[in-house]
Amino acid sequence: MALRIALIQMKIAESKEKTLKNAVDLIRIAKKEKYATVVVLPESFNCPYSEKNFQATAEEIPLGPTSQALRKAARDFGVYIVGGSIAEICCGKLYNTCTVWKPDGELLAKHREVHLRDANVLGKLPMNESHVFTQGDSFTTFFVGKTKIGLGVCWDMRFPEFASVYCQMDCDLLIYPTVSDEFTGELHWELLARARAVDNQLFVAFCSPARDTHAELVCHGHSLVVDPWGKVLQKGTEFQEIIVADLVLETLAEARSQIPVLTQKRADLYELVRKK
Amino acid sequence: MALRIALIQMKIAESKEKTLKNAVDLIRIAKKEKYATVVVLPESFNCPYSEKNFQATAEEIPLGPTSQALRKAARDFGVYIVGGSIAEICCGKLYNTCTVWKPDGELLAKHREVHLRDANVLGKLPMNESHVFTQGDSFTTFFVGKTKIGLGVCWDMRFPEFASVYCQMDCDLLIYPTVSDEFTGELHWELLARARAVDNQLFVAFCSPARDTHAELVCHGHSLVVDPWGKVLQKGTEFQEIIVADLVLETLAEARSQIPVLTQKRADLYELVRKK
Repeated sequence: MALRIALIQMKIAESKEKTLKNAVDLIRIAKKEKYATVVVLPESFNCPYSEKNFQATAEEIPLGPTSQALRKAARDFGVYIVGGSIAEICCGKLYNTCTVWKPDGELLAKHREVHLRDANVLGKLPMNESHVFTQGDSFTTFFVGKTKIGLGVCWDMRFPEFASVYCQMDCDLLIYPTVSDEFTGELHWELLARARAVDNQLFVAFCSPARDTHAELVCHGHSLVVDPWGKVLQKGTEFQEIIVADLVLETLAEARSQIPVLTQKRADLYELVRKK
Repeated sequence: MALRIALIQMKIAESKEKTLKNAVDLIRIAKKEKYATVVVLPESFNCPYSEKNFQATAEEIPLGPTSQALRKAARDFGVYIVGGSIAEICCGKLYNTCTVWKPDGELLAKHREVHLRDANVLGKLPMNESHVFTQGDSFTTFFVGKTKIGLGVCWDMRFPEFASVYCQMDCDLLIYPTVSDEFTGELHWELLARARAVDNQLFVAFCSPARDTHAELVCHGHSLVVDPWGKVLQKGTEFQEIIVADLVLETLAEARSQIPVLTQKRADLYELVRKK
């Protein structure tokens, strides 16, 4: 049995209206022409990634125009949408939030980025998400059929424990709408996706925007899907494109029975404890 | 400040005497010609990796001939030796054990493989270390100067929590004498070394024997040293050779300050607890 997933590695325009239209067009193609069951958008898909833009474009969920556009697209095309991330405003605070929509238009899940990216790589790529965002406080899972999916946004991908908790929760697939700069993207992007996959023996998808060399954050692109063996199933370029992969769900049991590390952990020596 | 490490990717002969002589020759070269401070031997370096050989060659530590040869080499050449692994016999039980020797010949540390490799990859590479070995029960660290080193043997490399506990214990370098088969070596060898390095922001060294296409376990080779950014500093071929790398210790603080993930973990959501 296979689950077809499509990653929308889209161009992000300055105009939110234009970008939402582009997103909806690509969702339609992913479902109607590529027959995806789950369509994933990238982090910050309704505006270029920048502190200023997050402040200016923040919306309530599910009342804001981006939520409404995704709800309508899910219903119109009959598809699950993992809505990348947008700046969410709630009770005066901003969050970096991913929404998930069912084919009937219902809001199925919502994940707020748990680990905020405060980093300054090479002293020339300062990013301080905590200046603008409040951190989320939850793990977020949902089902598509019998497939259990765990969500992370952006910097969440850097924390092995976060992925391992999802593994403890019996997830089959982890989806991270996320943006890397070119430097750490080159070094870490594929490495982190494959490491999360092989250490937890599940599928992993990273969905990035397309690269815009004029953007404040010039991103890596190369959205990818990895299987439980750590093999890259599909990987994009840096341009706008739809990456489609069939997740053969039997691979989960195959990897886990042939290399049974998940049952060989030494609970007498260490234990990863989920607190919430 | 740099620490020079040499990985001895050596051929393993059927004759223990011949193999020990080869090991000592290569340790001499690593110290006297390549000026290494720490010399690392591979897993099962005194006999080809097989259940039968482990039973036949097991020795007491530090009384057995392999320990004595390493002790003498450390003292003769004035070098730290991380003695790969050998089958250790103790109180009627066998362990897959790494010994560490100081330049004065003192036994500095001893690590017994904690996670035994019971796996059957592709249904044609059955390995059941638990048929012959008893598992170790400890984390093992030691110092070379101010550099704190954590030890794993073989299958221990597959457990992210094991490496993360060493990170919690302030290790700067993890050394794993280890053997991979060709299939999982191709898929996972470099991936696991780089993942442990980047997730814990420390140096990682995997030391393998050279490949012998006639051996029961045809191994991957490609011993390597990775820095805290996840960059491969040096990587071997599959042939007998000495891989030398200078660990620039300032890289630890550089990576940890620029990408401060170690201080950004969410102890309110999850916690890796060390039990021993």
